Amino acid sequence: MRKKSPNDTIARRRFLTGAAVLAGSAASSGFASRPAGAGDDNLPPNVPAWMKEQGAPILTPPYGLPSPFEKNVVRKQRRATPTQTAASTLTPLQDLHGIITPNGLHYERHHGGVPVIDPDQHRLIVHGLVERPLIFTMDDIMRFPSESHVYFLECSGNGSWKGNGPKATAQDTHGLLSCCEWTGVRLAAILNEAGLRPEAAWILAEAADAAAMSRSLPVAKALDDTLLAYAQNGERLRPEQGYPLRLFVPGYEANISIKWLRRLKVGDQPFQTREETSKYTDLMPDGTARQFTFVMEAKSVITLPSGGQQLRDKGFYEISGLAWSGRGRITGVDVSADGGASWTEARLQEPVLPKCLTRFRLPWRWDGAPAKLQSRATDETGYVQPQRSQLVEARGLNSYYHYNAVQTWQVGPDGAVTNVG
Amino acid sequence: MRKKSPNDTIARRRFLTGAAVLAGSAASSGFASRPAGAGDDNLPPNVPAWMKEQGAPILTPPYGLPSPFEKNVVRKQRRATPTQTAASTLTPLQDLHGIITPNGLHYERHHGGVPVIDPDQHRLIVHGLVERPLIFTMDDIMRFPSESHVYFLECSGNGSWKGNGPKATAQDTHGLLSCCEWTGVRLAAILNEAGLRPEAAWILAEAADAAAMSRSLPVAKALDDTLLAYAQNGERLRPEQGYPLRLFVPGYEANISIKWLRRLKVGDQPFQTREETSKYTDLMPDGTARQFTFVMEAKSVITLPSGGQQLRDKGFYEISGLAWSGRGRITGVDVSADGGASWTEARLQEPVLPKCLTRFRLPWRWDGAPAKLQSRATDETGYVQPQRSQLVEARGLNSYYHYNAVQTWQVGPDGAVTNVG
Repeated sequence: MRKKSPNDTIARRRFLTGAAVLAGSAASSGFASRPAGAGDDNLPPNVPAWMKEQGAPILTPPYGLPSPFEKNVVRKQRRATPTQTAASTLTPLQDLHGIITPNGLHYERHHGGVPVIDPDQHRLIVHGLVERPLIFTMDDIMRFPSESHVYFLECSGNGSWKGNGPKATAQDTHGLLSCCEWTGVRLAAILNEAGLRPEAAWILAEAADAAAMSRSLPVAKALDDTLLAYAQNGERLRPEQGYPLRLFVPGYEANISIKWLRRLKVGDQPFQTREETSKYTDLMPDGTARQFTFVMEAKSVITLPSGGQQLRDKGFYEISGLAWSGRGRITGVDVSADGGASWTEARLQEPVLPKCLTRFRLPWRWDGAPAKLQSRATDETGYVQPQRSQLVEARGLNSYYHYNAVQTWQVGPDGAVTNVG
Repeated sequence: MRKKSPNDTIARRRFLTGAAVLAGSAASSGFASRPAGAGDDNLPPNVPAWMKEQGAPILTPPYGLPSPFEKNVVRKQRRATPTQTAASTLTPLQDLHGIITPNGLHYERHHGGVPVIDPDQHRLIVHGLVERPLIFTMDDIMRFPSESHVYFLECSGNGSWKGNGPKATAQDTHGLLSCCEWTGVRLAAILNEAGLRPEAAWILAEAADAAAMSRSLPVAKALDDTLLAYAQNGERLRPEQGYPLRLFVPGYEANISIKWLRRLKVGDQPFQTREETSKYTDLMPDGTARQFTFVMEAKSVITLPSGGQQLRDKGFYEISGLAWSGRGRITGVDVSADGGASWTEARLQEPVLPKCLTRFRLPWRWDGAPAKLQSRATDETGYVQPQRSQLVEARGLNSYYHYNAVQTWQVGPDGAVTNVG
């Protein structure tokens, strides 16, 4: 029976999928009477092999790891680069649930590899247009009042203006995106100790890596919600996330959240580092370059089902995905199964937090016909994620960064899901 | 100068701790003029060794791990047991920040070790007082609509009626406690497919481990917020947390959140398993045993500073800790630095979620005198965490489980922090 909604999104009470009904209607005999076929000695009503012997002891290992059956759920290199120290890896979004990215799967982007830093030796220097230049140890910093927030982090190079080809997964198309609970000290507290001079307007942040990665941060943002972060998802930062200390600039392109932070120099104008002149600028249709485009605009992606996945058969699925905005909270996500011709509002998983991934969900009945799945995010400023045509009209095709168009997944008649951009 | 508050809790704007002030007042010369002492070639103004060579390449390893400098932040065995397969490990709460426990540090409690289960072979059987006995594959279950919630999980054996001795850390005293974002399907949805018979009142949940761990769950809770969880902190469950499927019963003693869940049998009364007769009962002062005490009452612990830690010197610290309640949200945490003689309300880190850890924080000035640090949680029912004397008055000293008294840390005149119960 055809639903009223043209794209078969549904809100049905019962969801029987492929569960096997046990033979017999009497409860106990029903359970006992199911014939155990050949080759399924581990299946009911039999006792599986893993109940017949003791399992692994505690602390194997003391710091736990995923099941060996999840060995393919790992980061992967984004593309071939001349060296593996100036390279990036992608988070497997299509295999994740909820909003938290486990630390072991947080995407990476390095310009000179991951330094091994002794936290007792690490220092943060604050100088430039300040009343009192200061040097902080990690102990000094961690004695300041701290805050914890669940924030997304997204590389402004996430997504592709040129497309990724039909075999691309959500990891390939959107994997320069992760979300953790970050804990740190407000940068404002440290700047307050040093004392900003009246002409202070920009702050150079420099990394203690071999690239001396550097970016300029406006003082207004530095005094707002910017953190000196020392922990992610409860534990201390991972090495590839800036251990022992990183800048965390909520909602801004990730490149400015300088890892392995060693130096903050206060100035009266931007420092025009390599990463804000030759890189991380947006080439506009008129040939001018847009600089300091910090905020990551609203964006979303369906992760289930998504590229490379396979629908087993017709019937009910839950469409699920992620939405986020560097400007604050997500207020709505619309989902289409017909390439944008019609839309249904998805349910947002609480809590919906500012500058954080929001998980959206919508029940969907696949009728076996080809479908084009899309999601479209709206944030609290009223900004609506654009279709590709709208984005290209405004920005042209010369850009590399800040691609946030609606993503389309094609469901074929065989249930195979492919990327169509 | 003495503050008005008798326990020196404070809300001060400036927090200068031990940061070194650079010599010279001019910013750039101040930075450059600091003499680099012997043995600190890595410190400012020098360029540290790790900036002089390329760091580690990406994907080392593909599934990331903590810094080698954090090698002591691991789970530890709670106490010696005859085997390592019937044993438990503790989360290092004193080294964690925020509310999320990284999966690798989630506490463990096993009765027959950790089984290695092939998710393709795993089945969930639903039978007993149902209209249609059913068998589910993991694929079947994961096609149902899912939910994600950040929930704490606490063993009802967390804490000790007998005390832990002066050297105990927060890991020792409260480490059977963790908190993750759990994703799963409402158990109600699965029971709805099977169809509960009118007389259904209790559900036996059985694990696919060598202990066949079993507990009885009331139907009312099963139809409320109980989940069939398949993911934690984004990724699939860890083996020691029940991979590929566990029951997750929010706010209840963790033992009932059966891991490696293989069977749900619906009955009209509790099944009186070993774990609810000989174990997980509370022996009351009158000699009767209290059974089915599921809900974990409000509790809290200061983690910074806590047992085994060392205050470096007088001055400002942020007292920080965790509060939680199985009945819902934490509404307040009071902190005392004088053993409960006076209290100051701590700040609660948003978002404050139901049946979830809540991080509290309070600035504190240590004046160098001995101090007794306590925290006291209140939840949305109005329940106030008891002092030990209050708890013992009500419960006597025969119990093993459900100890939730106020914890006291002693700060000695040398800054050493010890456990005084």
